[in-house]
Amino acid sequence: MSTGGSKLRVLAQRMRVTNPLIREAFAEGLGTFVLVLFGCGSVAQMVFHGPGVPFLSVNLAFGLAVTMGCYIAGGVSGAHLNPAVSLAMVVLGRLTLLKMLVYWVAQLLGAFIGAAMVFLIYLDAEKKHSRPWSMETAGIYATYPNTHLSTGGGFFDQVMGTAALLLCILALLDKKNTAPPDGVTPVIIGLVVAVIGMAMGHNCGYAINPARDLGPRLFTLIAGWGRAVFTHGNYWFWVPIIAPLLGGVLGALTYILFVELHHPSSSDTGTNTKEDAEKHYDLRKFDSHAAETVA
Amino acid sequence: MSTGGSKLRVLAQRMRVTNPLIREAFAEGLGTFVLVLFGCGSVAQMVFHGPGVPFLSVNLAFGLAVTMGCYIAGGVSGAHLNPAVSLAMVVLGRLTLLKMLVYWVAQLLGAFIGAAMVFLIYLDAEKKHSRPWSMETAGIYATYPNTHLSTGGGFFDQVMGTAALLLCILALLDKKNTAPPDGVTPVIIGLVVAVIGMAMGHNCGYAINPARDLGPRLFTLIAGWGRAVFTHGNYWFWVPIIAPLLGGVLGALTYILFVELHHPSSSDTGTNTKEDAEKHYDLRKFDSHAAETVA
Amino acid sequence: MSTGGSKLRVLAQRMRVTNPLIREAFAEGLGTFVLVLFGCGSVAQMVFHGPGVPFLSVNLAFGLAVTMGCYIAGGVSGAHLNPAVSLAMVVLGRLTLLKMLVYWVAQLLGAFIGAAMVFLIYLDAEKKHSRPWSMETAGIYATYPNTHLSTGGGFFDQVMGTAALLLCILALLDKKNTAPPDGVTPVIIGLVVAVIGMAMGHNCGYAINPARDLGPRLFTLIAGWGRAVFTHGNYWFWVPIIAPLLGGVLGALTYILFVELHHPSSSDTGTNTKEDAEKHYDLRKFDSHAAETVA
Amino acid sequence: MSTGGSKLRVLAQRMRVTNPLIREAFAEGLGTFVLVLFGCGSVAQMVFHGPGVPFLSVNLAFGLAVTMGCYIAGGVSGAHLNPAVSLAMVVLGRLTLLKMLVYWVAQLLGAFIGAAMVFLIYLDAEKKHSRPWSMETAGIYATYPNTHLSTGGGFFDQVMGTAALLLCILALLDKKNTAPPDGVTPVIIGLVVAVIGMAMGHNCGYAINPARDLGPRLFTLIAGWGRAVFTHGNYWFWVPIIAPLLGGVLGALTYILFVELHHPSSSDTGTNTKEDAEKHYDLRKFDSHAAETVA
Repeated sequence: MSTGGSKLRVLAQRMRVTNPLIREAFAEGLGTFVLVLFGCGSVAQMVFHGPGVPFLSVNLAFGLAVTMGCYIAGGVSGAHLNPAVSLAMVVLGRLTLLKMLVYWVAQLLGAFIGAAMVFLIYLDAEKKHSRPWSMETAGIYATYPNTHLSTGGGFFDQVMGTAALLLCILALLDKKNTAPPDGVTPVIIGLVVAVIGMAMGHNCGYAINPARDLGPRLFTLIAGWGRAVFTHGNYWFWVPIIAPLLGGVLGALTYILFVELHHPSSSDTGTNTKEDAEKHYDLRKFDSHAAETVA
Repeated sequence: MSTGGSKLRVLAQRMRVTNPLIREAFAEGLGTFVLVLFGCGSVAQMVFHGPGVPFLSVNLAFGLAVTMGCYIAGGVSGAHLNPAVSLAMVVLGRLTLLKMLVYWVAQLLGAFIGAAMVFLIYLDAEKKHSRPWSMETAGIYATYPNTHLSTGGGFFDQVMGTAALLLCILALLDKKNTAPPDGVTPVIIGLVVAVIGMAMGHNCGYAINPARDLGPRLFTLIAGWGRAVFTHGNYWFWVPIIAPLLGGVLGALTYILFVELHHPSSSDTGTNTKEDAEKHYDLRKFDSHAAETVA
Repeated sequence: MSTGGSKLRVLAQRMRVTNPLIREAFAEGLGTFVLVLFGCGSVAQMVFHGPGVPFLSVNLAFGLAVTMGCYIAGGVSGAHLNPAVSLAMVVLGRLTLLKMLVYWVAQLLGAFIGAAMVFLIYLDAEKKHSRPWSMETAGIYATYPNTHLSTGGGFFDQVMGTAALLLCILALLDKKNTAPPDGVTPVIIGLVVAVIGMAMGHNCGYAINPARDLGPRLFTLIAGWGRAVFTHGNYWFWVPIIAPLLGGVLGALTYILFVELHHPSSSDTGTNTKEDAEKHYDLRKFDSHAAETVA
Repeated sequence: MSTGGSKLRVLAQRMRVTNPLIREAFAEGLGTFVLVLFGCGSVAQMVFHGPGVPFLSVNLAFGLAVTMGCYIAGGVSGAHLNPAVSLAMVVLGRLTLLKMLVYWVAQLLGAFIGAAMVFLIYLDAEKKHSRPWSMETAGIYATYPNTHLSTGGGFFDQVMGTAALLLCILALLDKKNTAPPDGVTPVIIGLVVAVIGMAMGHNCGYAINPARDLGPRLFTLIAGWGRAVFTHGNYWFWVPIIAPLLGGVLGALTYILFVELHHPSSSDTGTNTKEDAEKHYDLRKFDSHAAETVA
């Protein structure tokens, strides 16, 4: 076995990629693949299973899907898994344009393949569905507007949803705030996505991620649903692409303008005494002998 | 780009606020904004979506809304996000009256703007609702009593709910008890709010927070629902303002009187031997060789 | 204010309890109070609210109720909150008989008062219920067997449920196993209770805690439901008292006999080499270069 | 009591097992027992309780069941609890073939006894069911294909589900990625199983574990359901045995090929500068003064 083992080791060494850009693209792609596999899979379960699966199940599953994507890509690429996140990082000067473009391609590709896997897993169910290859099952993969929604309303919905996402993500990563431990952060980011789904899912299915929406939409285009996936809802498809890119930047800037910009720096010690600094923590670092010091 | 970058840096430096009071007001405002955006958004989803969204979804979403508000404001202001929390901190001697008043204004303003955003996100759904701008959709923003509830019963409900909130929060912050790690505390505080919603949500929608209730109520007053939002339910509006302020103080004092006051201090070593101190932890710090020491 | 503050400080010092037994009784009582307040509150919400509140909501709420009780009492008494837990600790030699009896009284009293508070919170709803003060609403407070259940089947159910509880708790507290961080343990113990509710809640409402069941039952006896709360279900009341006490001990012993007893001790180094010790962790402490070492 | 205590201590010492293989088999068996007790118990609750228990409840319970199994066996055997996990570890060179076989037996035995306990807990409910000992209640224990599913489709479903499981587990254990703290890992592994249930549970009940499926199936064979449990669904029983074994290996290799293989090693410093290394963390280790450094 040692000979076979040596060969395997040599093979593994040869396949090893040292170029950071490719390594990160792999991680972004695999993470977004898992995001779509679990996320769109949960929508398929709701569509095919019927009453026993509430919308809440999809909200929780998409949150957990993002959590797992973050554990897969977090230590390699930072686990953007979302072109809107990558763009915001570029605007904040934390990612180069080149990397953003590579990430975008990887995210889109991962989402496309994830949709293909969901399609294959649920192909038997699709065939036996009362209305196979209809807009109802198209909604498993890409998002479409509810009948009550105007395009303007949907655009605003997607801007706000993605702004809320980035606002929370920046808070979670701000080490001068109450950031969770690094190894727990993916769970909390998943909870952000879950609560966005519970609060803003009714209008148009909270894509808040151009890759998660366009990748599966492109897959349905070639998998039998045809051009309707792009024309449906008054050519809705562009909204979950453009609005999240805009919303993500707005949300990130909002957090920075309201919170991050104003953290006291070490050079502030003149105006911001140690006493003041402790005061802000009165709730969280609450002294256990408070009752004794009421004075 | 370096010139543009320099300008941006200069601009950012100019916008920087060093006054702790303003910084904290920003954080409290933004945190409460997110609380209402996610929380009231989830009620809107339940009202507009129908059977697929159980009350449980609202309970979980309001908990997560508080969690995200805590991550946003925790490291800056302590993330009160609730006038009843701020008042309890004043009573315990951990916050000045001036700061409380500033926090109150910021919380109310954040909640007001949060309600406005939920309104805009769900404006199309409101227009297409069978009974638009009715008390049914008013209940998305502020809380109203269920038909079975007397005003006295509702007052007691709000006192108890907010007392339970502060009782748990003080336990979570008590470093001489089993406090969670700082970066995880926002999640547990969110779970407190979630369980209050599951256990005490049926009577009148568990406001337990004067800002979360009055801010959105004021918004609905000017957004088309009119004076009914204040007169409905026999002028219910004052209950979720006054009762939480009272309940929060009662809950905080309950924890202190039953637990925090009695923690052994270093000066107790005479009456409280080391052996005793270890005994209290028998369950949590359970020795792994217990079976061997049954004697 | 300094004078008033001094008086308060003096008052607080006078009310301070240094006797460990009383301190721990306070913590056990308050913790069990919160357990029943949230837990039975969630059953009330399911009974009064109707279809919008699934049984899952009660399962999650009882889990979170235990979590909050653990944060309240954990650092003081170890947060047994359950006579069956206290008895198991006595059998394992980790608690004295005297302390157990004091804990039992505190737990029962806390549960009784918790039930009274739930009753007051939902008194208006009880009055307006179609069948007020019936066995249906009695089930908010104490547990009763489902119509399909025999007494023997119910006894086995309660033994198994409480055995599963103690088995998991002992695993969570075993520092030679994969114990969670102390400040997170209350959340995991809550998850144990939640999963027991999801898996064993159908037969007779998973009391698995004599205080949580008898305390509220005694309250309903005097609050208008009468003797039926003891005679109903063929004098069911004794089952959720006796079976959990037995089951808890069985579960604790099971964990010790299958896992804890066999942890390698430092004196085992002769038979159990360091290499072996590392091997057991192959999954958890998985080396990140596994692919390179396939040989 | 000291004499009795001494006897007990001596007895405990005699029962102590120092052979690592037996210790680990005990842990694997007990962990898998708890997995099936809680997991299949939750299916029983859904089958017997009716509409009040959504499929989501089963998804969450199976996740928590795995979490508890991991806390029970994690520090001893690594908590595989699943022959597909053990096989993947053998393929990756992290477990010997002998150990795998011992683990397999322990897992199968634990699952068998777990099913027997669920059967006894719900025996009264089975007797009173409208169709006792039918395929409907057989589905409490082992998994069966939904009527729409082809055998090929089911095989693919089980390969994908188990591949997703191992892919995520390897990410969670990769200390060069964003691994959670050891004591929290069991919770996250439970969340992986929960999301697989939410996304891939509709076709055939997501066994993704040969022991969890075959053990309870063997129990139902002898407990009154007869040979139908093996012949039903066109001899479906072999699919949840073979497909997970294959899928687990594929999923583990996928993670290694896309992520783990490419982690920079210390010998890469030539091509991979410190600057590059920091860049990958741009999102997670986001600098809090980003706004100041936009340049």
